[in-house]
Amino acid sequence: MSSYLEEFRPPHRILMGPGPSSVHPRVLQTMSAPVLGHLDPYFVGVMDDVMEMLKMMFHTSNPLTLPVSGTGSAGVEAAFCNVVEQGDIVIVVVNGHFGNRAADTASRVGGDVRKVELNWGDAIGPDLTPLEDELKKHNKVKAVSVVHGETSTGVLNPLPEIAKLVHRYDALLIVDAVTSLGGELVDMDEWDLDVCHSCTQKCIGAPPGLAPISLGPRAVKVMQERQSQVQSFYLNLSTLQTYWGDRHQYHHTAPISMIYALREALRMAMEEGLDNRLARHARVAAGLRAGLTALGLDLFANPTYRLNPLTTAVVPEGVDQAKVRGRLLNDYNIEIAGGLGQIASQVWRIGVMGGSAEESNVLALLSAMERILPEEGYEVAYGAGVAAAQQAFAAAG
Amino acid sequence: MSSYLEEFRPPHRILMGPGPSSVHPRVLQTMSAPVLGHLDPYFVGVMDDVMEMLKMMFHTSNPLTLPVSGTGSAGVEAAFCNVVEQGDIVIVVVNGHFGNRAADTASRVGGDVRKVELNWGDAIGPDLTPLEDELKKHNKVKAVSVVHGETSTGVLNPLPEIAKLVHRYDALLIVDAVTSLGGELVDMDEWDLDVCHSCTQKCIGAPPGLAPISLGPRAVKVMQERQSQVQSFYLNLSTLQTYWGDRHQYHHTAPISMIYALREALRMAMEEGLDNRLARHARVAAGLRAGLTALGLDLFANPTYRLNPLTTAVVPEGVDQAKVRGRLLNDYNIEIAGGLGQIASQVWRIGVMGGSAEESNVLALLSAMERILPEEGYEVAYGAGVAAAQQAFAAAG
Repeated sequence: MSSYLEEFRPPHRILMGPGPSSVHPRVLQTMSAPVLGHLDPYFVGVMDDVMEMLKMMFHTSNPLTLPVSGTGSAGVEAAFCNVVEQGDIVIVVVNGHFGNRAADTASRVGGDVRKVELNWGDAIGPDLTPLEDELKKHNKVKAVSVVHGETSTGVLNPLPEIAKLVHRYDALLIVDAVTSLGGELVDMDEWDLDVCHSCTQKCIGAPPGLAPISLGPRAVKVMQERQSQVQSFYLNLSTLQTYWGDRHQYHHTAPISMIYALREALRMAMEEGLDNRLARHARVAAGLRAGLTALGLDLFANPTYRLNPLTTAVVPEGVDQAKVRGRLLNDYNIEIAGGLGQIASQVWRIGVMGGSAEESNVLALLSAMERILPEEGYEVAYGAGVAAAQQAFAAAG
Repeated sequence: MSSYLEEFRPPHRILMGPGPSSVHPRVLQTMSAPVLGHLDPYFVGVMDDVMEMLKMMFHTSNPLTLPVSGTGSAGVEAAFCNVVEQGDIVIVVVNGHFGNRAADTASRVGGDVRKVELNWGDAIGPDLTPLEDELKKHNKVKAVSVVHGETSTGVLNPLPEIAKLVHRYDALLIVDAVTSLGGELVDMDEWDLDVCHSCTQKCIGAPPGLAPISLGPRAVKVMQERQSQVQSFYLNLSTLQTYWGDRHQYHHTAPISMIYALREALRMAMEEGLDNRLARHARVAAGLRAGLTALGLDLFANPTYRLNPLTTAVVPEGVDQAKVRGRLLNDYNIEIAGGLGQIASQVWRIGVMGGSAEESNVLALLSAMERILPEEGYEVAYGAGVAAAQQAFAAAG
């Protein structure tokens, strides 16, 4: 029998990789609702709700705030292709895989990319001299790109000072908030960010499929005054806005069921309260870090700039990182990830994002690690990690 | 109370517009299954099944056959941006809105676009002189683009002769099968099509969110030998293939739940049988046309080249087309669409696609029209359209 004839029976995993995260059944259930037309009055109401709640998520009043109809990488592309024109200088801060991804995307849309490279595991700041040196080199820089939460390294790059510096040089600041939005504070208006884009499948708690993006007034002005047409019809924010805005004019057929799910996930975030949500991510991450440390594992990211939604743990000498991940998945139904790029085999990446940011998941992972690691030649005592995590949870209140 | 706090309670519509079409509960239900990681072994099996069944849908053995992670317009963009380079001549056959859309997209990716324009409502063929005249004008044409089923006019452009002509001039044929795949025969290998792209929310019977695409050997060779990088990271088929192919290497986070739904919709198509599926679309469309004609409405498309999944009916003099659509939606929960572009207010567009291609839907629509039209000043007899449709259904067996 061909496998495509087999009934669909997916296993139930605890998703603790870099996303997708586990999605609450309430959110999943909305996707089984009947599909509506993309111009149906009820669906238009759903769109309006989504835009209103996304503004709250981004802490912004930017009218141009909407989900692009693709996953996180489509958001990266939308961010660059709407404001960058052929030959524009774009400075990309690179301290991980997704910095490189941004540089690649900016170059594909025609940008003249200059990288400011840092050691992976470090953040940019508090010393911004390398970035300022690069800004000084050019007559006109169109944009500076920074990844807020680097999913490859577990580093959180601080944004407010960068925004001030970038604006002194009359450039736009483009921020990749793919792993931070909903799990770390992203305050677009207070921090004066120009373009900020994210995804739905990490700290927002919906399945993958959409990329929320918001453009502030400087970015909108740049977009409106550009000389060349945007290279993408699909990601052209000016015309997307005629669909998402008051006119609700047909642009493309939106992924209806995904937008149902995003509305429900955002509603759940509003019910929880954004401050409570950030505190939950911080508390669960603190327990995870304490537990991993108690197992004797080193954490990879600079301790001053650690990202709550994603922790990188250094794989101990002599342990086969892929085998441990395989056992976690097969024997315990827990997904974590290996590294990416230059640190591919050096770290595990462990996510506590959205619906996965639960104490119980951390305890399940640590206790599974306590079972697996000794069998892979790395001694740890049963309960050591779990106890440390419990103490950290208790201390965090 | 803010509307976003309100419980999600979408109405249940009969979707008879140009897509999305109604999705079977079996397909909707898969999306409420737990989300898996995009590299999970079970999910990789789902991907393999989807690719295998898409090949059957496209009637092809092309290894590069996969769903792009965006809706139909993303597929248009993927088709052009992977094979067209800056300054390449692209001839676009335009006999409707989606021909113009293709021309716009081809131009955005850098193509030097030449349109071959026909009257809306007509098909290209059997006389291909206008296309051949354009082909003769240029030293080298990179690609010719044709929309198979024009969703704006209800016309089906015949492809086999066009493919032969285009290949005599050493160009690629790019086919938009957005509205035809799954509802009309699309035989990529037999007809020798080079690039063919579609969507999931019309005749495939899944929600919107993915764009199946397939590239034949000529197109793959052009892609491999291109001099410049593909302008889109997200839609770059060479690297997408490393994710969908045997290596399953991370490229971007796929829209997991949408791919669940696509697998189930394709399975339902396989269970039905592709020939039976096409016959169902033909039978239901025949009944719809007979019913509309019995109501005295003129059909817009050239009778020789009518598309089964979508029928265009001319709005009678003096009838407010938008008001009729509004009453259908509000009083009968039936969605049909108005026109697009130059025929926006002249036609209704009525789809019988995928799960919506059911006799009962046609009978519901016709009986609602028989109630509404007289109240809008256009006399029709109760039962006239319904009876004609029933006769046509019976005649079609």
